[in-house]
Order: sequence, then structure tokens, then C-alpha cells
Amino acid sequence: MAGVSVSTASKVLNGRGHFTAATHTKINDAVERLGFRPNALARSFATGRSQLVGVLTEFAPGVFTSPVMVGASTHLGHNNMATLFADASREPAAMSGLAENLRARHVDGLLVIGDGLHTRLSSVSGGFDVPVVYVFGESVDPNDVSFVPDNEMVGRIATEHLLELGRTKIAHIAVPDDLAGAARTKGCVDALENAGLSLAGGRAYPSMWRRAGGIAATTAMLDSGADVDAIFCSNDQIAFGALAALTAAGRRVPDDVALVGVDNWEAMSGTGQNVLTTVDPDLRGLGRAASAYLLDALTGRHEPGRHTHPCRIRLGESTLGVQAETPA
Amino acid sequence: MAGVSVSTASKVLNGRGHFTAATHTKINDAVERLGFRPNALARSFATGRSQLVGVLTEFAPGVFTSPVMVGASTHLGHNNMATLFADASREPAAMSGLAENLRARHVDGLLVIGDGLHTRLSSVSGGFDVPVVYVFGESVDPNDVSFVPDNEMVGRIATEHLLELGRTKIAHIAVPDDLAGAARTKGCVDALENAGLSLAGGRAYPSMWRRAGGIAATTAMLDSGADVDAIFCSNDQIAFGALAALTAAGRRVPDDVALVGVDNWEAMSGTGQNVLTTVDPDLRGLGRAASAYLLDALTGRHEPGRHTHPCRIRLGESTLGVQAETPA
Repeated sequence: MAGVSVSTASKVLNGRGHFTAATHTKINDAVERLGFRPNALARSFATGRSQLVGVLTEFAPGVFTSPVMVGASTHLGHNNMATLFADASREPAAMSGLAENLRARHVDGLLVIGDGLHTRLSSVSGGFDVPVVYVFGESVDPNDVSFVPDNEMVGRIATEHLLELGRTKIAHIAVPDDLAGAARTKGCVDALENAGLSLAGGRAYPSMWRRAGGIAATTAMLDSGADVDAIFCSNDQIAFGALAALTAAGRRVPDDVALVGVDNWEAMSGTGQNVLTTVDPDLRGLGRAASAYLLDALTGRHEPGRHTHPCRIRLGESTLGVQAETPA
Repeated sequence: MAGVSVSTASKVLNGRGHFTAATHTKINDAVERLGFRPNALARSFATGRSQLVGVLTEFAPGVFTSPVMVGASTHLGHNNMATLFADASREPAAMSGLAENLRARHVDGLLVIGDGLHTRLSSVSGGFDVPVVYVFGESVDPNDVSFVPDNEMVGRIATEHLLELGRTKIAHIAVPDDLAGAARTKGCVDALENAGLSLAGGRAYPSMWRRAGGIAATTAMLDSGADVDAIFCSNDQIAFGALAALTAAGRRVPDDVALVGVDNWEAMSGTGQNVLTTVDPDLRGLGRAASAYLLDALTGRHEPGRHTHPCRIRLGESTLGVQAETPA
């Protein structure tokens, strides 16, 4: 249609060779009239680039894994990169074999998504000559690149919010023996120290991540006679347990005791409520940040080690009191 | 390494031609020693198959969209199909342009994921010569293939559960003017009719999907003096509103009034609680079923119209009473 050879058309479309403006115009007109688009399959074969990112999950259905996956795959899609998923279904031993399968598909890069931050992720980077990024879990190998929520920041901004409200007798229900839990505790203790304070009750009250743990820890706290006007709970489930135990004991929230949790699960679950003030680890943003790094890594960026993603506080009734409910 | 020509090796590996067992053995030994895997890029180029499925979402971060995406992309990954995402970010007008971009990437098929079932999805199938499947939203075009939860079944099994518990004065808080809401109401009314009953209070009590709507509808129900021993609420938020209103009015749940909701969001949000008995629409399973259909469609399956995916009931305290809480 342009009246030129295939070779000339190819060179002009790929920006090679020197041709007259008239030749460019003829070819571009033909492209437009034909609705021509380059063949992605042929281009992949020619360049050796699959435009494909492998996504290896420890447990795809995980409540916290899903938003990381959605953030990552949406960002990759926006950048015209496809995603090939493999899920280890909570069998850690399956991870390296699945990674090998993805490598055999010539992925341009690999995201490894953990199922939380309780333990570190085994490294599967050996054998990969393309970028590998670990997200929502830190690789045991410090030469790997890992993206995780900033859990010290979580503890710090939760505590600073309570300090700003004038609370000074701040207790903490902690989850020890857990990487995320320990970092949240450190952030809390650091913020208190900066304010010249220490934990109410003299120590953190231990719990598991569940509501029943929050009930038990709060009951123990009240029984011990500890004088508290606020509790930073290491997640929202614990905070809801604390809310139940405080209410049962006749303590008003937030008037007598203010509460802050972590995870923003009221938003995650679509309740449209904001009963709890909570710190949102921004897991979709974490998935997006790790993907953005991976795309940069395709063109040479290399910053091994741990990258922390900032969190944000979401205010609710458990520190600000009951607001007028939005009409249905 | 096998001492045969490239052409012979290719034929044996692709199951063509006739060769001796010795030749097969030599070639398979070489494959194993070399760790040879077929080049997926070259294969895609040769077959014209991208091994890529486009996934077009109305709103990827949607609370209910995420499990559909996760179910779909995990199933596709298990079947060695990659996924290219595009998200319309709640701008319906963007859908067809995004679909066109995916088509230009030579996807082997397209999943269109809706943001719920409130309205129908515009058809973007025109221009595609590969299978297109609509999921969690029904295409306006009856020649398209759509996968949706079975919302009449939702209403039916919720109501049948209450009937099995011996409840006979069953009220319903409904969301009219909504495809999902209307189907849930129909399932409820059908189940009551099968039992020779009709709605307590003589009509459904209207609400929006929110907790405040559940509070308002339940308050109106109690104020009108309606005699009820159970309420089927069209989603969990409404049911939590009903729970709050009943408790405030001194009615015991489930002793005086049993409650059933829909969505299973306590599991979705990872609370580990089962306060509510709820009907789970199995959205991950819905995404998996639509993907499985799409893979079948690549080899010729074609069943236009609406495919409904079964739901399941998840029992909780709001109909069975308080169980001993699992220790933390």
C-alpha cells in the first residue's frame, strides 16, 4: 500500500536506516489506514523478551496476599507486562520447583509474594538471570531485593497518634516471636521513648494475632490493675478483642481507653465502617511498588536488600469517638 | 549429543514421524542430560498462540473483584496460561479501548470481570475471534458467555436453613432495583412458598447494602410490631446492622430472632470469627469456573448464555448460638 519494500517498511517502523520524509509519510499513512500493530509474538521471539513476569505466591488465597497480587498485576498490566502465576498452596518445599517452571517459560522477571511476615522467605533466585523481587516477605539472602511494609513505622505512627491525642499511659498488646510483630513493638517503644515515656504496665502484653488473644491480654491487663488510657494492639483482630473486653469491664472507648489496631480490615472487607482507628499497611501499594522496582530492574536498577513501604493511619471511632453515621 | 539430526530430534520431541526405540532413547537421554525445555517464545511464534489470557476488570481493587481475579489467575497459571491485566478503574467507557489493547497483544482468550452484579456488563466481544467470558457480571448480549453466582440459590438456601431450624416467621431485608438483590429475594420467597409460607410482615423491608440500612430496616420492622423469629438479610453488612438493632431492642440473637447474611466477609477479612451465619458466593470458585470454561473454549466448547455458580452456607452464631471460642 505504501509502494515500498517490506524491508524498507520494517526499517522505518523500527527507526533504522535513513529514508526521505516522503517515504516516512507513505508508510505511516499505510499503517494508519491498515490499523497495523506490530506482532507481539514475533517481537518476543526476535528480542528474546517474553513481556511476561512470573508471580510465585506462597498462598494466593491468603487474605493479605490478594491485595499484593492485585496491586502488582494491575501495575504490570498498565505497563503492558503479562503475569504468569504459580501458587505453592502453603507448601514451602514447592517454591523452588515452581520457580524453575516459571524460568523455563522465559519470564523477564519474577515476583515472589509471601503470605505475611512471620518468617523469612527462602531464596529461589539461584538459576535466574533475570530480576527477582521478594514482596510481603523478606528473602533470607541479603543479596536479594525484598519489599516489605514498614512495620516499625506502623508501631511509631500508631503510638504518635495516641500521644497527639494527649494519652500518656499507653499499653501495648504485642505478638512476640514474629518478625512483623516484633518490628511493630519496636516502633511503639521508640515513639514512647522519644516522648520520655515507657509502656504502661511496664511491659508489652503478649497475644496471638486473634480476637481471643486480645480479650485475654486485655483482661489480664485490667486484672493486674494497670493504669492505662490507651492500647496499641498489634492488629485489628486483637483490637476488636480489646474493645469487647474493655466494654465488658465497663470502660468506655475511647473516653477511658483509646484503641489503635493494624491492617484496616474494615476497608478490606468492604464494611464501610470505621469503628477502629487502624494503621493501613497499604498492601496494594506494596505490590505496586515491588512491580515498579521490577520494571526498573529490567533496565538495570539494582538495589539489593530490604525496601520498606510506608503505611498510613486511618482514623476511626476507637480514638476519635462516635461520629454521625453516614445515612444508608 | 544424541547423534541425530535437528530435524529427527524435533520430530521425536513433537511426536511426529516413525523412529526406532533406540533413537527415542538417545534423544530422551540427551534431553535429560541437557535439561532441555522447549522454547516457549519460539513455540508461541510458530503456533500463533500467545498462551496469554487477557483479564479486563471494571475495578480491580473492588472487595469482591479481588477473589474472582485470584481464583481466575491462579487456575490459569496452574494450566500454564499467563494473564495480562487491564483495569478500567470504574470508568465503563474505558472498557472497549482496553479490550482492544488486549486483542492487539494476541491474547488467546479474554475474561471480563465485573465489579458486582448491580447492572449488566456492556459487551466488548465484537472484534474478538477468540473466546470471551464475562464473570461476576452478565453481558447484555445473550450470545455472550457469562458466569455469575447463583443468587436465587443464595436466597433459597439461606431461607431453607432458617426453616430447618424451625423458624416460620421469616422476614427479609431486601435490596430492590439491583440484579443480585432481586434474585436473592426471589430465592427467599420461592423457598417460603415451597413451605407454604410467605414473608413475615407481608413484604420485604427495603435497604441499601450498608449496615445503616440494616439498622433502619430492622428498627422499622420492630416498630411496626411485625412478629418475626428470623431475618434473611441480603448481605452481611445489613445483617450486622440488624444484629445491632435487635440487640439494642433487647431481642436475643438467635434465641428470639435468628439472622442469616450473605458474602462470608468475616472469612474474606480474615477475622477468624463466625458470628454470622452467611451464604458464601464462592467468588474464588467463580473465577476458577470461568477460567476453566475459557480453557475448554480454546478447544471448541461454546455454550452461550448465563452460567450460574453454586453457593454454600457457612454456619455461625447468629443461627446456632454462641459456641465455645477457640483458644487464641
